[in-house]
Amino acid sequence: MKSISRRELITHAGMALGGAVTATAFLGACGGSSQATAETGSSPQVADFPYRKFIPAGYALDKKAVQESAYQFYWAGGCGHGAYKALMQHLAQTVGAPFSLLPLDACMYQGGGIAGYGSICGTVNGGLVVINSIVADPKARTAMMTDLLRWYEGTAFPSYVPAAINASEKATLDFSAANISRLQVVPHSHLCHASRTQWCQKNGVAAASPDLAARCARLAADVAGKVVDLLNGYLASGSYTATLALDSTSAGCVGCHTSTRLNESVASGMRCDSCHPTKTTNHPL
Amino acid sequence: MKSISRRELITHAGMALGGAVTATAFLGACGGSSQATAETGSSPQVADFPYRKFIPAGYALDKKAVQESAYQFYWAGGCGHGAYKALMQHLAQTVGAPFSLLPLDACMYQGGGIAGYGSICGTVNGGLVVINSIVADPKARTAMMTDLLRWYEGTAFPSYVPAAINASEKATLDFSAANISRLQVVPHSHLCHASRTQWCQKNGVAAASPDLAARCARLAADVAGKVVDLLNGYLASGSYTATLALDSTSAGCVGCHTSTRLNESVASGMRCDSCHPTKTTNHPL
Repeated sequence: MKSISRRELITHAGMALGGAVTATAFLGACGGSSQATAETGSSPQVADFPYRKFIPAGYALDKKAVQESAYQFYWAGGCGHGAYKALMQHLAQTVGAPFSLLPLDACMYQGGGIAGYGSICGTVNGGLVVINSIVADPKARTAMMTDLLRWYEGTAFPSYVPAAINASEKATLDFSAANISRLQVVPHSHLCHASRTQWCQKNGVAAASPDLAARCARLAADVAGKVVDLLNGYLASGSYTATLALDSTSAGCVGCHTSTRLNESVASGMRCDSCHPTKTTNHPL
Repeated sequence: MKSISRRELITHAGMALGGAVTATAFLGACGGSSQATAETGSSPQVADFPYRKFIPAGYALDKKAVQESAYQFYWAGGCGHGAYKALMQHLAQTVGAPFSLLPLDACMYQGGGIAGYGSICGTVNGGLVVINSIVADPKARTAMMTDLLRWYEGTAFPSYVPAAINASEKATLDFSAANISRLQVVPHSHLCHASRTQWCQKNGVAAASPDLAARCARLAADVAGKVVDLLNGYLASGSYTATLALDSTSAGCVGCHTSTRLNESVASGMRCDSCHPTKTTNHPL
Protein backbone atom coordinates (compact mmCIF):
# COMPACT_ATOMS: atom_id res chain seq x y z
CA MET A 1 0.00 0.00 0.00
CA LYS A 2 1.39 3.38 -0.97
CA SER A 3 0.87 5.94 1.74
CA ILE A 4 0.05 9.46 0.61
CA SER A 5 1.90 12.27 2.27
CA ARG A 6 0.35 15.31 3.87
CA ARG A 7 2.15 17.43 1.27
CA GLU A 8 0.66 15.47 -1.58
CA LEU A 9 -2.76 15.79 0.04
CA ILE A 10 -2.40 19.56 0.22
CA THR A 11 -1.06 19.79 -3.32
CA HIS A 12 -3.97 17.80 -4.73
CA ALA A 13 -6.54 19.68 -2.72
CA GLY A 14 -4.95 22.98 -3.71
CA MET A 15 -5.16 22.09 -7.38
CA ALA A 16 -8.73 20.85 -7.02
CA LEU A 17 -9.71 24.16 -5.48
CA GLY A 18 -8.00 26.19 -8.18
CA GLY A 19 -4.81 26.79 -6.20
CA ALA A 20 -6.36 29.48 -4.02
CA VAL A 21 -6.75 27.41 -0.87
CA THR A 22 -4.61 28.31 2.13
CA ALA A 23 -2.95 25.40 3.86
CA THR A 24 -4.24 26.55 7.23
CA ALA A 25 -7.84 26.48 6.17
CA PHE A 26 -7.46 23.15 4.42
CA LEU A 27 -5.68 21.38 7.24
CA GLY A 28 -8.11 22.76 9.73
CA ALA A 29 -10.84 20.99 7.83
CA CYS A 30 -8.94 17.73 7.31
CA GLY A 31 -7.11 17.30 10.58
CA GLY A 32 -4.43 14.61 10.46
CA SER A 33 -0.83 14.45 11.58
CA SER A 34 1.96 16.64 10.25
CA GLN A 35 4.26 13.65 10.70
CA ALA A 36 2.52 11.72 7.92
CA THR A 37 5.01 12.81 5.28
CA ALA A 38 7.96 11.56 7.29
CA GLU A 39 6.53 8.04 7.27
CA THR A 40 6.68 7.62 3.49
CA GLY A 41 9.71 6.19 1.71
CA SER A 42 10.57 9.50 0.02
CA SER A 43 9.99 11.70 3.04
CA PRO A 44 11.42 15.24 2.95
CA GLN A 45 14.74 15.53 4.76
CA VAL A 46 16.21 18.53 6.62
CA ALA A 47 19.38 18.29 4.52
CA ASP A 48 17.40 18.62 1.26
CA PHE A 49 17.69 22.40 1.41
CA PRO A 50 16.06 24.84 0.69
CA TYR A 51 12.47 23.80 1.08
CA ARG A 52 10.45 25.61 -1.62
CA LYS A 53 10.05 22.26 -3.37
CA PHE A 54 8.16 20.80 -0.41
CA ILE A 55 5.56 23.58 -0.32
CA PRO A 56 2.44 22.78 -2.35
CA ALA A 57 1.08 24.98 -5.12
CA GLY A 58 -1.44 27.50 -3.88
CA TYR A 59 -0.05 27.49 -0.35
CA ALA A 60 -0.03 30.74 1.59
CA LEU A 61 0.94 31.47 5.18
CA ASP A 62 -1.77 32.89 7.44
CA LYS A 63 -0.43 36.33 8.42
CA LYS A 64 -2.81 36.98 11.29
CA ALA A 65 -2.07 33.63 12.97
CA VAL A 66 1.69 34.07 12.57
CA GLN A 67 1.62 37.60 14.00
CA GLU A 68 -0.29 36.66 17.13
CA SER A 69 2.06 33.70 17.71
CA ALA A 70 5.12 35.93 17.25
CA TYR A 71 3.82 38.34 19.89
CA GLN A 72 3.09 35.49 22.33
CA PHE A 73 6.36 33.57 21.70
CA TYR A 74 8.36 36.73 22.38
CA TRP A 75 7.57 36.33 26.06
CA ALA A 76 8.96 32.77 26.09
CA GLY A 77 12.31 33.40 24.40
CA GLY A 78 12.81 36.92 23.06
CA CYS A 79 12.50 38.72 19.76
CA GLY A 80 14.31 36.35 17.40
CA HIS A 81 12.52 33.42 18.99
CA GLY A 82 9.16 35.17 18.59
CA ALA A 83 9.52 35.81 14.88
CA TYR A 84 11.29 32.55 14.01
CA LYS A 85 9.16 30.15 16.04
CA ALA A 86 5.88 31.71 14.90
CA LEU A 87 6.84 31.36 11.23
CA MET A 88 8.48 27.95 11.49
CA GLN A 89 5.82 26.37 13.68
CA HIS A 90 3.16 27.59 11.28
CA LEU A 91 5.05 26.01 8.35
CA ALA A 92 5.51 22.81 10.37
CA GLN A 93 1.82 22.63 11.17
CA THR A 94 0.54 23.50 7.70
CA VAL A 95 3.19 22.01 5.37
CA GLY A 96 4.71 19.26 7.55
CA ALA A 97 8.19 17.89 6.85
CA PRO A 98 10.90 19.03 6.61
CA PHE A 99 9.66 22.07 8.61
CA SER A 100 8.22 19.75 11.25
CA LEU A 101 11.66 18.17 11.73
CA LEU A 102 13.38 21.45 12.67
CA PRO A 103 14.11 22.70 16.20
CA LEU A 104 11.71 25.53 17.07
CA ASP A 105 13.92 26.95 19.82
CA ALA A 106 16.92 27.52 17.56
CA CYS A 107 16.76 31.35 17.48
CA MET A 108 16.66 32.28 21.15
CA TYR A 109 20.30 33.37 20.88
CA GLN A 110 19.28 36.25 18.59
CA GLY A 111 17.56 38.18 21.38
CA GLY A 112 18.77 41.73 22.05
CA GLY A 113 20.82 41.84 18.86
CA ILE A 114 22.56 38.45 19.38
CA ALA A 115 22.99 37.43 23.01
CA GLY A 116 22.18 40.98 24.13
CA TYR A 117 25.09 42.47 22.15
CA GLY A 118 22.99 45.15 20.41
CA SER A 119 23.76 43.98 16.85
CA ILE A 120 21.16 43.02 14.22
CA CYS A 121 17.57 43.11 15.52
CA GLY A 122 16.50 39.58 16.44
CA THR A 123 13.10 39.88 14.78
CA VAL A 124 14.83 40.49 11.44
CA ASN A 125 17.48 37.83 12.11
CA GLY A 126 14.82 35.22 12.86
CA GLY A 127 12.89 36.22 9.75
CA LEU A 128 16.01 35.92 7.60
CA VAL A 129 16.53 32.33 8.74
CA VAL A 130 12.99 31.45 7.60
CA ILE A 131 13.32 33.19 4.21
CA ASN A 132 16.65 31.40 3.75
CA SER A 133 15.06 28.03 4.51
CA ILE A 134 12.64 28.39 1.60
CA VAL A 135 14.05 30.51 -1.22
CA ALA A 136 16.47 28.73 -3.57
CA ASP A 137 17.29 31.42 -6.16
CA PRO A 138 20.12 33.60 -4.75
CA LYS A 139 18.86 36.70 -6.60
CA ALA A 140 15.33 36.40 -5.20
CA ARG A 141 16.74 35.59 -1.74
CA THR A 142 19.02 38.62 -1.77
CA ALA A 143 16.20 40.90 -2.96
CA MET A 144 13.84 39.65 -0.24
CA MET A 145 16.45 40.02 2.48
CA THR A 146 17.46 43.49 1.31
CA ASP A 147 13.80 44.56 1.26
CA LEU A 148 13.25 43.17 4.77
CA LEU A 149 16.26 45.00 6.21
CA ARG A 150 15.43 48.24 4.38
CA TRP A 151 11.75 48.06 5.23
CA TYR A 152 12.70 47.64 8.90
CA GLU A 153 15.00 50.67 8.84
CA GLY A 154 12.28 52.88 7.34
CA THR A 155 9.09 51.74 9.09
CA ALA A 156 7.43 53.26 12.15
CA PHE A 157 7.13 50.55 14.86
CA PRO A 158 5.24 49.01 16.54
CA SER A 159 1.91 48.51 14.74
CA TYR A 160 0.58 45.15 15.88
CA VAL A 161 -2.26 45.05 18.40
CA PRO A 162 -2.42 41.60 20.06
CA ALA A 163 -5.65 39.62 20.24
CA ALA A 164 -4.75 38.81 23.86
CA ILE A 165 -2.22 40.58 26.09
CA ASN A 166 0.36 38.12 27.42
CA ALA A 167 0.38 37.70 31.20
CA SER A 168 4.12 38.59 31.31
CA GLU A 169 3.54 42.04 29.82
CA LYS A 170 3.85 44.89 32.35
CA ALA A 171 3.57 47.94 30.09
CA THR A 172 2.84 51.38 31.55
CA LEU A 173 2.37 53.11 28.18
CA ASP A 174 -0.87 52.83 26.21
CA PHE A 175 -0.33 50.28 23.41
CA SER A 176 -4.04 50.12 22.50
CA ALA A 177 -5.20 50.34 18.89
CA ALA A 178 -6.42 53.86 19.57
CA ASN A 179 -3.05 55.08 20.84
CA ILE A 180 -0.28 52.90 19.35
CA SER A 181 0.53 55.28 16.49
CA ARG A 182 1.61 57.87 19.09
CA LEU A 183 4.31 55.46 20.33
CA GLN A 184 5.75 54.68 16.90
CA VAL A 185 9.33 55.49 15.91
CA VAL A 186 11.18 54.86 12.62
CA PRO A 187 14.47 53.19 13.69
CA HIS A 188 16.60 54.25 10.65
CA SER A 189 18.85 51.31 11.61
CA HIS A 190 18.38 47.54 11.75
CA LEU A 191 20.75 47.31 14.73
CA CYS A 192 19.02 46.45 17.99
CA HIS A 193 20.70 49.02 20.24
CA ALA A 194 20.06 51.92 17.87
CA SER A 195 16.46 50.91 17.21
CA ARG A 196 15.89 50.43 20.92
CA THR A 197 17.52 53.66 22.12
CA GLN A 198 15.59 55.83 19.65
CA TRP A 199 12.27 54.30 20.60
CA CYS A 200 12.99 54.72 24.30
CA GLN A 201 14.16 58.29 23.81
CA LYS A 202 10.89 59.31 22.15
CA ASN A 203 8.75 57.54 24.72
CA GLY A 204 10.70 58.53 27.85
CA VAL A 205 11.45 55.00 29.01
CA ALA A 206 14.61 52.95 29.63
CA ALA A 207 16.09 50.33 27.28
CA ALA A 208 15.59 47.69 29.97
CA SER A 209 11.99 48.77 30.74
CA PRO A 210 8.82 46.64 30.56
CA ASP A 211 7.54 49.15 27.96
CA LEU A 212 10.47 48.38 25.68
CA ALA A 213 9.67 44.68 26.05
CA ALA A 214 6.04 45.36 25.11
CA ARG A 215 7.27 47.27 22.05
CA CYS A 216 9.66 44.49 20.98
CA ALA A 217 6.97 41.80 21.37
CA ARG A 218 4.79 43.77 18.93
CA LEU A 219 7.82 44.37 16.71
CA ALA A 220 8.26 40.59 16.47
CA ALA A 221 4.69 40.40 15.19
CA ASP A 222 5.22 43.28 12.74
CA VAL A 223 8.38 41.76 11.27
CA ALA A 224 6.97 38.21 11.17
CA GLY A 225 3.98 39.67 9.29
CA LYS A 226 6.29 41.33 6.77
CA VAL A 227 8.09 38.02 6.26
CA VAL A 228 4.70 36.40 5.59
CA ASP A 229 4.00 39.05 2.92
CA LEU A 230 7.41 38.52 1.32
CA LEU A 231 7.08 34.71 1.31
CA ASN A 232 3.49 34.67 0.08
CA GLY A 233 4.48 36.98 -2.80
CA TYR A 234 7.41 34.76 -3.69
CA LEU A 235 5.43 31.53 -3.38
CA ALA A 236 2.60 32.86 -5.54
CA SER A 237 4.81 34.17 -8.35
CA GLY A 238 7.91 31.97 -8.10
CA SER A 239 10.13 35.04 -8.12
CA TYR A 240 10.86 38.28 -6.26
CA THR A 241 12.16 41.67 -7.35
CA ALA A 242 13.35 44.22 -4.78
CA THR A 243 10.86 47.03 -4.21
CA LEU A 244 12.74 49.38 -1.88
CA ALA A 245 15.58 51.66 -2.97
CA LEU A 246 18.34 52.99 -0.75
CA ASP A 247 17.32 56.35 0.76
CA SER A 248 18.55 59.39 -1.15
CA THR A 249 21.07 60.51 1.51
CA SER A 250 22.79 57.11 1.63
CA ALA A 251 22.57 56.81 -2.16
CA GLY A 252 24.53 60.06 -2.31
CA CYS A 253 27.20 58.59 0.00
CA VAL A 254 27.74 55.35 -1.91
CA GLY A 255 27.50 57.21 -5.21
CA CYS A 256 31.03 58.45 -4.44
CA HIS A 257 32.12 55.83 -1.89
CA THR A 258 31.70 52.94 -4.30
CA SER A 259 32.99 49.43 -3.70
CA THR A 260 35.44 49.80 -6.58
CA ARG A 261 37.25 53.03 -5.68
CA LEU A 262 40.60 52.82 -3.94
CA ASN A 263 40.09 55.45 -1.21
CA GLU A 264 37.40 55.10 1.50
CA SER A 265 35.76 52.34 -0.50
CA VAL A 266 32.42 51.12 0.89
CA ALA A 267 30.26 48.03 0.22
CA SER A 268 26.99 48.52 2.12
CA GLY A 269 23.23 48.61 1.69
CA MET A 270 22.64 50.07 5.16
CA ARG A 271 21.47 53.61 5.83
CA CYS A 272 24.55 55.78 6.38
CA ASP A 273 23.05 58.64 8.38
CA SER A 274 22.07 56.74 11.51
CA CYS A 275 25.71 55.95 12.44
CA HIS A 276 27.51 58.68 10.51
CA PRO A 277 25.48 61.88 10.95
CA THR A 278 28.60 64.06 10.85
CA LYS A 279 29.45 62.63 7.43
CA THR A 280 25.99 63.06 5.92
CA THR A 281 25.59 66.69 6.98
CA ASN A 282 28.33 69.27 6.35
CA HIS A 283 30.35 66.63 4.51
CA PRO A 284 34.05 67.59 4.40
CA LEU A 285 35.14 68.37 0.86
CA MET B 1 21.09 -7.84 17.38
CA LYS B 2 21.72 -4.42 18.86
CA SER B 3 23.54 -2.16 16.44
CA ILE B 4 26.11 0.17 17.96
CA SER B 5 26.14 3.74 16.81
CA ARG B 6 29.13 5.69 15.56
CA ARG B 7 28.67 8.00 18.53
CA GLU B 8 28.80 5.12 20.99
CA LEU B 9 31.89 3.81 19.23
CA ILE B 10 33.64 7.15 19.59
CA THR B 11 32.55 7.48 23.21
CA HIS B 12 33.88 4.06 24.11
CA ALA B 13 37.11 4.55 22.23
CA GLY B 14 37.60 7.98 23.77
CA MET B 15 37.16 6.54 27.26
CA ALA B 16 39.48 3.64 26.49
CA LEU B 17 42.17 6.09 25.40
CA GLY B 18 41.80 8.27 28.44
CA GLY B 19 39.48 10.77 26.82
CA ALA B 20 42.25 12.56 24.99
CA VAL B 21 41.59 11.13 21.56
CA THR B 22 40.35 13.50 18.86
CA ALA B 23 37.44 12.25 16.82
CA THR B 24 39.21 13.03 13.57
CA ALA B 25 42.17 10.87 14.34
CA PHE B 26 40.04 8.02 15.64
CA LEU B 27 37.61 7.99 12.74
CA GLY B 28 40.43 8.22 10.27
CA ALA B 29 41.74 4.98 11.70
CA CYS B 30 38.36 3.24 11.91
CA GLY B 31 36.65 4.30 8.68
CA GLY B 32 32.94 3.56 8.64
CA SER B 33 29.88 5.61 7.75
CA SER B 34 28.69 8.72 9.56
CA GLN B 35 25.15 7.58 8.81
CA ALA B 36 25.49 4.60 11.13
CA THR B 37 23.92 6.42 14.06
CA ALA B 38 20.84 7.31 12.06
CA GLU B 39 20.14 3.64 11.46
CA THR B 40 19.66 2.78 15.12
CA GLY B 41 16.30 2.91 16.84
CA SER B 42 17.22 5.89 19.01
CA SER B 43 19.01 7.87 16.34
CA PRO B 44 19.71 11.54 17.03
CA GLN B 45 17.18 13.87 15.45
CA VAL B 46 17.65 17.43 14.17
CA ALA B 47 14.78 18.64 16.35
CA ASP B 48 16.47 17.31 19.52
CA PHE B 49 18.27 20.61 19.98
CA PRO B 50 20.95 21.62 21.00
CA TYR B 51 23.42 18.87 20.27
CA ARG B 52 25.97 18.81 23.11
CA LYS B 53 24.40 15.57 24.30
CA PHE B 54 25.32 13.81 21.06
CA ILE B 55 29.02 14.68 21.28
CA PRO B 56 31.11 12.00 23.00
CA ALA B 57 33.32 12.62 26.02
CA GLY B 58 36.87 13.51 25.07
CA TYR B 59 35.85 14.83 21.66
CA ALA B 60 37.70 17.83 20.25
CA LEU B 61 37.44 19.54 16.88
CA ASP B 62 40.57 19.58 14.75
CA LYS B 63 41.39 23.30 14.39
CA LYS B 64 43.86 22.98 11.54
CA ALA B 65 41.49 20.89 9.41
CA VAL B 66 38.56 23.26 10.05
CA GLN B 67 40.62 26.35 9.19
CA GLU B 68 41.86 25.03 5.85
CA SER B 69 38.29 23.96 4.93
CA ALA B 70 36.93 27.40 5.88
CA TYR B 71 39.45 29.09 3.60
CA GLN B 72 38.63 26.73 0.72
CA PHE B 73 34.81 26.83 1.19
CA TYR B 74 34.89 30.64 1.11
CA TRP B 75 35.51 30.46 -2.63
CA ALA B 76 32.42 28.29 -3.16
CA GLY B 77 29.87 30.37 -1.23
CA GLY B 78 31.31 33.33 0.67
CA CYS B 79 32.41 34.11 4.21
CA GLY B 80 29.46 32.77 6.24
CA HIS B 81 29.45 29.62 4.14
CA GLY B 82 33.20 29.18 4.63
CA ALA B 83 33.07 29.32 8.42
CA TYR B 84 29.77 27.46 8.84
CA LYS B 85 30.34 24.64 6.37
CA ALA B 86 33.88 23.97 7.57
CA LEU B 87 32.71 23.61 11.17
CA MET B 88 29.48 21.75 10.46
CA GLN B 89 30.96 19.34 7.91
CA HIS B 90 33.73 18.53 10.36
CA LEU B 91 31.15 17.79 13.08
CA ALA B 92 29.12 15.71 10.61
CA GLN B 93 32.16 13.67 9.60
CA THR B 94 33.53 13.16 13.11
CA VAL B 95 30.40 13.00 15.31
CA GLY B 96 27.73 11.92 12.81
CA ALA B 97 24.04 12.56 13.45
CA PRO B 98 22.38 14.95 13.97
CA PHE B 99 25.17 17.11 12.44
CA SER B 100 25.24 14.83 9.40
CA LEU B 101 21.51 15.48 8.85
CA LEU B 102 21.90 19.26 8.52
CA PRO B 103 22.13 21.24 5.27
CA LEU B 104 25.73 22.38 4.73
CA ASP B 105 24.80 25.21 2.35
CA ALA B 106 22.48 26.97 4.81
CA CYS B 107 24.71 30.00 5.49
CA MET B 108 25.47 31.30 2.01
CA TYR B 109 23.01 34.14 2.62
CA GLN B 110 25.33 35.58 5.29
CA GLY B 111 27.95 36.69 2.76
CA GLY B 112 28.92 40.38 2.70
CA GLY B 113 27.10 41.08 5.96
CA ILE B 114 23.81 39.32 5.01
CA ALA B 115 23.07 39.28 1.28
CA GLY B 116 25.74 41.95 0.70
CA TYR B 117 24.04 44.44 3.03
CA GLY B 118 27.17 45.23 5.08
CA SER B 119 25.71 44.12 8.43
CA ILE B 120 27.24 41.50 10.75
CA CYS B 121 30.36 39.82 9.32
CA GLY B 122 29.36 36.49 7.80
CA THR B 123 32.28 34.61 9.31
CA VAL B 124 31.02 35.53 12.80
CA ASN B 125 27.39 34.88 11.85
CA GLY B 126 28.22 31.40 10.56
CA GLY B 127 30.23 30.69 13.69
CA LEU B 128 27.35 31.81 15.92
CA VAL B 129 25.02 29.29 14.26
CA VAL B 130 27.44 26.47 15.07
CA ILE B 131 27.95 27.55 18.71
CA ASN B 132 24.18 27.81 19.05
CA SER B 133 23.70 24.30 17.68
CA ILE B 134 25.80 22.81 20.49
CA VAL B 135 25.62 24.89 23.68
CA ALA B 136 22.52 24.37 25.83
CA ASP B 137 23.18 26.63 28.83
CA PRO B 138 22.06 30.19 27.93
CA LYS B 139 24.72 31.76 30.19
CA ALA B 140 27.58 29.81 28.59
CA ARG B 141 26.13 30.45 25.12
CA THR B 142 25.87 34.20 25.74
CA ALA B 143 29.41 34.34 27.13
CA MET B 144 30.84 32.44 24.15
CA MET B 145 28.98 34.60 21.64
CA THR B 146 29.98 37.82 23.38
CA ASP B 147 33.61 36.71 23.43
CA LEU B 148 33.49 35.80 19.73
CA LEU B 149 32.04 39.20 18.73
CA ARG B 150 34.42 41.11 21.01
CA TRP B 151 37.45 39.08 19.95
CA TYR B 152 36.58 39.84 16.32
CA GLU B 153 36.32 43.57 16.97
CA GLY B 154 39.72 43.68 18.68
CA THR B 155 41.86 41.28 16.62
CA ALA B 156 44.23 42.11 13.76
CA PHE B 157 43.12 40.14 10.64
CA PRO B 158 43.94 38.11 8.66
CA SER B 159 46.37 35.60 10.18
CA TYR B 160 45.69 32.27 8.47
CA VAL B 161 48.13 31.05 5.84
CA PRO B 162 46.46 28.37 3.65
CA ALA B 163 48.10 25.02 3.00
CA ALA B 164 47.06 25.41 -0.65
CA ILE B 165 46.01 28.61 -2.45
CA ASN B 166 42.59 28.20 -4.04
CA ALA B 167 42.50 28.47 -7.83
CA SER B 168 39.87 31.25 -7.62
CA GLU B 169 42.17 33.55 -5.63
CA LYS B 170 43.58 36.45 -7.65
CA ALA B 171 45.37 38.47 -4.97
CA THR B 172 47.92 41.13 -5.90
CA LEU B 173 49.11 41.76 -2.32
CA ASP B 174 51.59 39.45 -0.58
CA PHE B 175 49.61 37.19 1.81
CA SER B 176 52.58 34.90 2.50
CA ALA B 177 53.51 33.87 6.05
CA ALA B 178 56.49 36.21 5.86
CA ASN B 179 54.37 39.26 4.98
CA ILE B 180 50.82 38.73 6.23
CA SER B 181 51.32 40.68 9.45
CA ARG B 182 51.93 43.81 7.36
CA LEU B 183 48.42 43.52 5.89
CA GLN B 184 46.63 43.11 9.21
CA VAL B 185 44.02 45.58 10.50
CA VAL B 186 41.97 45.55 13.73
CA PRO B 187 38.36 46.15 12.56
CA HIS B 188 37.02 47.70 15.82
CA SER B 189 33.56 46.64 14.54
CA HIS B 190 31.91 43.32 13.78
CA LEU B 191 29.96 44.88 10.90
CA CYS B 192 31.09 43.75 7.46
CA HIS B 193 31.18 47.12 5.73
CA ALA B 194 33.18 48.80 8.50
CA SER B 195 35.62 45.90 8.83
CA ARG B 196 36.02 45.78 5.06
CA THR B 197 36.47 49.53 4.47
CA GLN B 198 39.15 49.86 7.15
CA TRP B 199 41.14 46.94 5.81
CA CYS B 200 40.95 48.27 2.27
CA GLN B 201 41.91 51.77 3.39
CA LYS B 202 45.12 50.56 5.01
CA ASN B 203 46.05 48.34 2.09
CA GLY B 204 45.11 50.70 -0.75
CA VAL B 205 42.60 48.40 -2.41
CA ALA B 206 38.86 48.53 -3.19
CA ALA B 207 36.09 46.81 -1.22
CA ALA B 208 35.20 44.78 -4.32
CA SER B 209 38.81 43.82 -5.07
CA PRO B 210 40.31 40.32 -5.38
CA ASP B 211 42.62 41.29 -2.49
CA LEU B 212 39.63 41.90 -0.21
CA ALA B 213 38.30 38.47 -1.19
CA ALA B 214 41.67 36.90 -0.35
CA ARG B 215 41.54 38.66 3.04
CA CYS B 216 37.98 37.50 3.77
CA ALA B 217 38.78 33.88 2.83
CA ARG B 218 41.56 33.94 5.44
CA LEU B 219 39.26 35.73 7.87
CA ALA B 220 36.81 32.82 7.53
CA ALA B 221 39.63 30.51 8.60
CA ASP B 222 40.65 32.80 11.49
CA VAL B 223 37.09 33.03 12.85
CA ALA B 224 36.35 29.32 12.34
CA GLY B 225 39.55 28.59 14.26
CA LYS B 226 38.41 30.82 17.13
CA VAL B 227 35.07 28.99 17.20
CA VAL B 228 36.98 25.70 17.44
CA ASP B 229 38.90 27.09 20.45
CA LEU B 230 35.67 28.25 22.12
CA LEU B 231 33.88 24.95 21.50
CA ASN B 232 36.81 22.76 22.54
CA GLY B 233 37.09 24.73 25.78
CA TYR B 234 33.39 24.38 26.47
CA LEU B 235 33.29 20.68 25.55
CA ALA B 236 36.29 19.88 27.76
CA SER B 237 35.02 21.74 30.84
CA GLY B 238 31.24 21.66 30.39
CA SER B 239 31.06 25.40 31.01
CA TYR B 240 32.29 28.75 29.73
CA THR B 241 33.02 32.07 31.39
CA ALA B 242 33.54 35.23 29.33
CA THR B 243 37.18 36.26 29.08
CA LEU B 244 36.98 39.59 27.24
CA ALA B 245 35.80 42.86 28.82
CA LEU B 246 34.32 45.80 26.96
CA ASP B 247 37.09 48.24 25.94
CA SER B 248 37.63 51.12 28.36
CA THR B 249 36.26 53.83 26.04
CA SER B 250 32.98 51.99 25.48
CA ALA B 251 32.82 51.02 29.15
CA GLY B 252 32.94 54.73 29.90
CA CYS B 253 30.01 55.35 27.51
CA VAL B 254 27.71 52.68 28.91
CA GLY B 255 28.78 53.57 32.45
CA CYS B 256 26.53 56.63 32.05
CA HIS B 257 24.31 55.48 29.18
CA THR B 258 22.97 52.49 31.08
CA SER B 259 20.00 50.40 29.99
CA THR B 260 18.02 51.59 33.01
CA ARG B 261 18.33 55.37 32.74
CA LEU B 262 15.48 57.31 31.14
CA ASN B 263 17.46 59.61 28.83
CA GLU B 264 19.64 58.26 25.99
CA SER B 265 19.41 54.79 27.44
CA VAL B 266 21.63 52.19 25.71
CA ALA B 267 21.71 48.37 25.78
CA SER B 268 24.79 47.29 23.84
CA GLY B 269 27.97 45.26 24.09
CA MET B 270 29.41 46.66 20.87
CA ARG B 271 32.37 49.04 20.71
CA CYS B 272 31.02 52.61 20.65
CA ASP B 273 33.92 54.46 19.06
CA SER B 274 33.84 52.84 15.62
CA CYS B 275 30.41 54.32 14.77
CA HIS B 276 30.30 57.25 17.19
CA PRO B 277 33.78 58.86 17.16
CA THR B 278 32.34 62.33 17.74
CA LYS B 279 30.70 61.08 20.94
CA THR B 280 33.74 59.30 22.32
CA THR B 281 36.12 62.25 21.85
CA ASN B 282 35.19 65.77 23.01
CA HIS B 283 31.98 64.42 24.50
CA PRO B 284 29.40 67.21 24.94
CA LEU B 285 28.73 67.89 28.61
